[in-house]
Amino acid sequence: MKLKHLAILLSGAAAAALGQAGFADGQSAKSQASPIYGVTLPDGYRKWPLIAPAQEAAPLNELRAVLGNEQAIKAYEKNTLPFPDGTVLVKLAWKHVQSPEFEPASIPGAATTVQVMVKDAKKYASTGGWGFGRFINGQPADEAQHKTCFACHQALVRDHDFVFTRFAP
Amino acid sequence: MKLKHLAILLSGAAAAALGQAGFADGQSAKSQASPIYGVTLPDGYRKWPLIAPAQEAAPLNELRAVLGNEQAIKAYEKNTLPFPDGTVLVKLAWKHVQSPEFEPASIPGAATTVQVMVKDAKKYASTGGWGFGRFINGQPADEAQHKTCFACHQALVRDHDFVFTRFAP
Repeated sequence: MKLKHLAILLSGAAAAALGQAGFADGQSAKSQASPIYGVTLPDGYRKWPLIAPAQEAAPLNELRAVLGNEQAIKAYEKNTLPFPDGTVLVKLAWKHVQSPEFEPASIPGAATTVQVMVKDAKKYASTGGWGFGRFINGQPADEAQHKTCFACHQALVRDHDFVFTRFAP
Repeated sequence: MKLKHLAILLSGAAAAALGQAGFADGQSAKSQASPIYGVTLPDGYRKWPLIAPAQEAAPLNELRAVLGNEQAIKAYEKNTLPFPDGTVLVKLAWKHVQSPEFEPASIPGAATTVQVMVKDAKKYASTGGWGFGRFINGQPADEAQHKTCFACHQALVRDHDFVFTRFAP
């Protein structure tokens, strides 16, 4: 095993340990900014209100939940489209595992990615007004991954201001 | 079709219409209290922080999310067991439906039930310190349904203060 791989493994284990502690500081510690967009993990996002959960089928096999800041929640309340500048959406994702305690239920396992969308119509004019950040263990994924964000949102949810998630009543 | 059944259908349709409006007043309007326990839907719960999402397999076929009040979140942060008096957990459930926009994703459909657990060690001494409320369209389910709550929690999660849900990191 190369040293680089060991370092990645250890970094993953440390993040998992932090995750197990619950609302660990590691979750809201200042992350590096995402490539292309310069988006960081927002402070305190883990306690933001829920917009909706979702499930992602194999191969990702994840449970997910999208949370929103105050501007996001207000926009959903009033069905405001496009979302106003300052809107931030955060999608948390976990491996989707069987509940050890209740046979019909499946629940979040290890955290996988945290994905952020920030609305700034001027700054991100070329990508529908949205900046994107995809974080793994609190650090941004590479530039190649960030190049894929907007194309998919643009192709599939242009009519909902490039946002997939609807508010779950 | 009997008049009673029509009334139930209309009531469901009205609730669905309210649900579509987003954070509708109907969700936090004062509900009747649950049988046995006298638990009501807490004010403003829809904006409480997320503890974890979950999926429930067929026949219910639901996506779910458990939210918690401030006491609940503090207890999860500090791994406090048993949960302190005043803890309130609210589980929202929706039918689990295919996303019309993204093939690998499935998302919340119509809201089904909202289930509440309230901790009061003295008041609910005979049921592990928990009072239960199960609400459909904002109104409590019948006494027979409420008789089933504690037996299942007692049988399966006695060691976690009768609470299934763990915090999703």
